[in-house]
Amino acid sequence: MRRLLVKSSAGDYRVIVGRGAWQALRRLRGYTSSFVLTEASLWERWGRRFARESGRGRVQPILVPSGETSKSLARAGNVAAELLERGADRRSLLVALGGGVVGDLGGFVASTYMRGIDYVQAPTTVLAQVDSALGGKTAVNIRGMKNLLGTFCAPRLVVSDPAVLASLSPRAFQSGLYEAVKHAILSGPGLFGWIENRIPGLKPGHTKILETLVARAAQVKVDVVSRDEKEAGLRRILNLGHTYGHALEEATGYRRFLHGEAVAWGMLMVTRLAELANLLDPAVGKRIASLVSAVGPLPRICDLGEDKVLGLLPRDKKAVGGRIHWVLPEGIGKVRVTPDVPQAAVAQAFREIQRGVVNV
Amino acid sequence: MRRLLVKSSAGDYRVIVGRGAWQALRRLRGYTSSFVLTEASLWERWGRRFARESGRGRVQPILVPSGETSKSLARAGNVAAELLERGADRRSLLVALGGGVVGDLGGFVASTYMRGIDYVQAPTTVLAQVDSALGGKTAVNIRGMKNLLGTFCAPRLVVSDPAVLASLSPRAFQSGLYEAVKHAILSGPGLFGWIENRIPGLKPGHTKILETLVARAAQVKVDVVSRDEKEAGLRRILNLGHTYGHALEEATGYRRFLHGEAVAWGMLMVTRLAELANLLDPAVGKRIASLVSAVGPLPRICDLGEDKVLGLLPRDKKAVGGRIHWVLPEGIGKVRVTPDVPQAAVAQAFREIQRGVVNV
Repeated sequence: MRRLLVKSSAGDYRVIVGRGAWQALRRLRGYTSSFVLTEASLWERWGRRFARESGRGRVQPILVPSGETSKSLARAGNVAAELLERGADRRSLLVALGGGVVGDLGGFVASTYMRGIDYVQAPTTVLAQVDSALGGKTAVNIRGMKNLLGTFCAPRLVVSDPAVLASLSPRAFQSGLYEAVKHAILSGPGLFGWIENRIPGLKPGHTKILETLVARAAQVKVDVVSRDEKEAGLRRILNLGHTYGHALEEATGYRRFLHGEAVAWGMLMVTRLAELANLLDPAVGKRIASLVSAVGPLPRICDLGEDKVLGLLPRDKKAVGGRIHWVLPEGIGKVRVTPDVPQAAVAQAFREIQRGVVNV
Repeated sequence: MRRLLVKSSAGDYRVIVGRGAWQALRRLRGYTSSFVLTEASLWERWGRRFARESGRGRVQPILVPSGETSKSLARAGNVAAELLERGADRRSLLVALGGGVVGDLGGFVASTYMRGIDYVQAPTTVLAQVDSALGGKTAVNIRGMKNLLGTFCAPRLVVSDPAVLASLSPRAFQSGLYEAVKHAILSGPGLFGWIENRIPGLKPGHTKILETLVARAAQVKVDVVSRDEKEAGLRRILNLGHTYGHALEEATGYRRFLHGEAVAWGMLMVTRLAELANLLDPAVGKRIASLVSAVGPLPRICDLGEDKVLGLLPRDKKAVGGRIHWVLPEGIGKVRVTPDVPQAAVAQAFREIQRGVVNV
């Protein structure tokens, strides 16, 4: 079992990574009732074990459909109404058991239900364990505009059991690994090299390796959000690959890509963009691109109109006063956040990756 | 011009009360753009003056229909989408120019839009100036359940110009005065006596008296929320009259009463309840009831089913683990918060006030 500590203005909290991590919930006492926000299939598979390990025998599940469409304001309202009907009050606890959607939605509801109740993140995907469940960001989408409403609200605890990853589909598993690769790029040669050696052949059932991978990749995010809780600056580096990535997701109506897959394309593009801006040694760029590619194949982007995708870029909410803050790799373990990137290079990087001009 | 200071964990902020208070907005600089959430009729009447006084010539209005139904999650989503379409980013400023609905909705949107942007409360009703615009509570209703989702989020500034009260309807004006009376009960004989002497014949156009009234009544709330920002305990006293009041509002589908009117009935009932519980000298109870009654006539409650109204009481979100925390006056300037009230007395107080048994 590994324990990380996240510093937060609303109180520090622990991230527990390892088999049986849910047992850490036993230490949370004094709540009038406990609720688990999750998906039906997850509850069927893990509900009993969760109740047993967490010591919350009378925990009540609140089920939401799987998929990004659950991350809506209407759904948040439904969950809140269900909480009220089932007797949740200000001293109830909400556990978000699931992937990024359940975590973002659960955090949003918890942070606003009766103006805020305590919640726990119990992530069940690689993406959620290494990224989205950490840092206290919550959100819902509005009319396809991702994360337009949300809060910063620290959970009481994050409990990540890598054993639950065994039930992920290969595609969902791979999608999450891209976020781990992102953290490796941000971190430095140590983690990057470690992941480079273990990505080939890595499977959802390799619980032991995954425990280390999750803990190490999560530590990268924990370090960043502990120093910049509310995205004053440093936290922006976590958006490596996300500017192009969000545009790709939006251009395809959030139907074609899993989030990590879009970020993977985005990382390939900003890596190329950094090369074009003379910020990145092409040999290092190639190493980054190779690791991204080693995770697995990505859904096609060859049919997407360049104007359409690039036209969606400024919608990224990191844009301040209309500008986009690009996160560009300058090396392994070194990134630069800058709005000063020529539009022509932005288009060129997109085009070259789209057309496979750059051999990745 | 009077200046109050609210202490808040997210930074202290000022409440400016007086003619020309909107000019204080000139000191808020460095925003990429400014938006005003308001109602069409308010914007028509005050928009020009607001733009001129606040020095925000290019301010953009976002209009919502008047009435409680605008305080919905769907409306919050619409406002957020409109903000995005009009180019609002994380460094935009939102001003809520209106009454309690606009303030609660505007605060909710501002506190969640892109995970939080700065906002200003510019209240235009008595109720909002003495109560709802102060303290950083934001909220929306879900399926008729009042304030089910919300946040604690301090505004940057509150600017209350009593001159705008001149355009209030007599009914809306009176409704707000009940909240001022509530604060007088909480405050003590000084403010209570001052208000007792000025309520008879007070009109929306009496700007000078209203400036003092608003500032003094607001000060009561400011003192409370500065000591208990997130309703750990003390802040509960502000709910004097609200437990019955919310039940009355809900029982009538939020159509019959203005909020202050329901609170007025609620204050009459808890005053009687306090008498029945031997906590309040009936002579003082009569003085409180007389001041409430002096504000004006209230919509009828004689037709409301006792079981229905009382059955709606436990939904009050101050209930922890199912109990209700009653706020009972023990004197002028002295209240007790307690869950220990016999159900029979709760029903009797309701019945007596409903049937006019108690002469108020």
